[in-house]
Amino acid sequence: MKYGHGGDSYAYENITDFSANINPLKVPSEISEAVISSVNALGSYPDWSCKALREKIAKNAGCEADDVICGNGAADLIFSIVYAHRPKQALLTAPCFSEYETALKAADANIRYHMLLQEHDFILTSDFEKELTVDLDMVFLCVPNNPTGAVTDKKRLVRIADICEKKDILLVLDECFNEFLDMPGDYSLLGEIAGRACLVILKSFTKMFALAGLRLGYAISGNHALFEKIYRQRQSWPVSTLAQRAGIAALDRTAFAEYSRNYLLQERAYLAGALCSLGCRVFAGSANFIFFYCAVSLKEKLLKKGFLIRDCSNYQGLSRGYYRIAVRTHDENVRLLEAMRIVLEEGET
Amino acid sequence: MKYGHGGDSYAYENITDFSANINPLKVPSEISEAVISSVNALGSYPDWSCKALREKIAKNAGCEADDVICGNGAADLIFSIVYAHRPKQALLTAPCFSEYETALKAADANIRYHMLLQEHDFILTSDFEKELTVDLDMVFLCVPNNPTGAVTDKKRLVRIADICEKKDILLVLDECFNEFLDMPGDYSLLGEIAGRACLVILKSFTKMFALAGLRLGYAISGNHALFEKIYRQRQSWPVSTLAQRAGIAALDRTAFAEYSRNYLLQERAYLAGALCSLGCRVFAGSANFIFFYCAVSLKEKLLKKGFLIRDCSNYQGLSRGYYRIAVRTHDENVRLLEAMRIVLEEGET
Repeated sequence: MKYGHGGDSYAYENITDFSANINPLKVPSEISEAVISSVNALGSYPDWSCKALREKIAKNAGCEADDVICGNGAADLIFSIVYAHRPKQALLTAPCFSEYETALKAADANIRYHMLLQEHDFILTSDFEKELTVDLDMVFLCVPNNPTGAVTDKKRLVRIADICEKKDILLVLDECFNEFLDMPGDYSLLGEIAGRACLVILKSFTKMFALAGLRLGYAISGNHALFEKIYRQRQSWPVSTLAQRAGIAALDRTAFAEYSRNYLLQERAYLAGALCSLGCRVFAGSANFIFFYCAVSLKEKLLKKGFLIRDCSNYQGLSRGYYRIAVRTHDENVRLLEAMRIVLEEGET
Repeated sequence: MKYGHGGDSYAYENITDFSANINPLKVPSEISEAVISSVNALGSYPDWSCKALREKIAKNAGCEADDVICGNGAADLIFSIVYAHRPKQALLTAPCFSEYETALKAADANIRYHMLLQEHDFILTSDFEKELTVDLDMVFLCVPNNPTGAVTDKKRLVRIADICEKKDILLVLDECFNEFLDMPGDYSLLGEIAGRACLVILKSFTKMFALAGLRLGYAISGNHALFEKIYRQRQSWPVSTLAQRAGIAALDRTAFAEYSRNYLLQERAYLAGALCSLGCRVFAGSANFIFFYCAVSLKEKLLKKGFLIRDCSNYQGLSRGYYRIAVRTHDENVRLLEAMRIVLEEGET
């Protein structure tokens, strides 16, 4: 089995991991304390229904607890939704997060790819709407898109959701990186789930609250029949007690999320500018990561200098030379840029 | 969605939970310390391959690390194995653990039930072997069986595995409660995986190490092609960092497991004897739980006295009057028996 994501820091020692898009700031102690205090509760099965967590998510999101389903990370829900919906024909953008494709292939779905084009900075155009044909059962869309960081505004998202509703296409909108945007509400359909059976929104705790190792994600939708199917088609206890309690603690930490967003937006601008100065082509985008092209092979050379970055050549629709880096702390960003400067000065050897 | 298992202690307050089969003894602090010290590692994704944990499991089990796959609880692996193997026709015993049925139904498999009979104390007889016909793709067998506690000896298990191998039926042998038996090796196929592509053994950390809230289980098999399919058909990070590290710590705690086994065997004998004295029919079995029949309705009455027990009437093949209780600490067992004595004296009201 080959691993195809970023974040495989286990393969290396003493590296700074720019390959996984995780908030690098020190997470509030209330969250780790919630994990630690749950240790005494491990002898009992987790609450199968994640009741307290769903209620709190719903309150924050302005929906009902029954509009929320929790999972063992957002990736778990990607598979659960696909297995429950069983699409025959699906549409993906290329490039996009590869778990969609893996899940669809596991369920024997046919996949059509809508190629995002470099000449448009990999941004979704109205061409995508033309691809939403009645033969489709399911579409995944990631906003901001991973790995490109490209955003799609709410007006277009509503148009896409309307078409999907009309043509009975399940639209899974992955908003896992939404909180890192300058104006999250401008690129979200969270307020639009009422009356839309074809819309499911994916969210994660992994990125903002640096809980990737804990596994916790959720989906929001008014399509309760889909949720019922998921409950029937997955194990009874997918979300650990630790994850449920950490999630509840995290939802209160709005000031941390706000501070992180601002810090990372500023660092993103700094890092993007510096990459341009180094001669890389940085594509338009937002979120806590940067997508760029560089003619010089970077990954192995930066590894030797202690930095792991995401080589994006294995993404559908991309090839050699495309990279993604997480926005990390200022010091770490400065050190990465210095290492890149040296690597680029050396050029291809 | 309706919950159909024991252990739903979240629905009640201040109860002693006899409905989930978890070791009630104080778990060694090394395990909770492993969880607590992992909190600082949550910002990174878990090791997708669970390398260190698989190596340690393999060393303990006397197999290779590649013979081991880890999951988000054994229940997660039940679904993963079914989704990977996609059986058309499966065989289950009735009664047995209901997640097998849920997983098989989710994968649209036809299910045939081999009824375990009360007149045989629900013990598997040679009749089961006659049911292993070539039309089958998959069989689940649980030894000791949940909820009955009935065991099947190794000689018969080898015979069953031989038939499955010959007829190309995937045999999933759930040994999650094996460690609680007096002579675990006499009822296990752990030493028999070599050369058997049709044998998968399921194991859990949940029961012995009271980690139900953490979610960690594993499967052992020489069928690496099946494991490859599972890796391709599930999310990339199903096992949390906390679970991986707790598992590694737990595998060293053999003295605790040994002490727990002996303690619970003794308490089981005490509890079973007392239940008989109270007029219940206790069925032959082993493991850390007891299966019995009682003509008086117990569940609601015991709840009022602060005890949650497992009403088994919703199991395939069972009806009203069958109950399962976990073996807990001596004090707790004494208190349950006292409550039962009062309830039974009152009779049906």
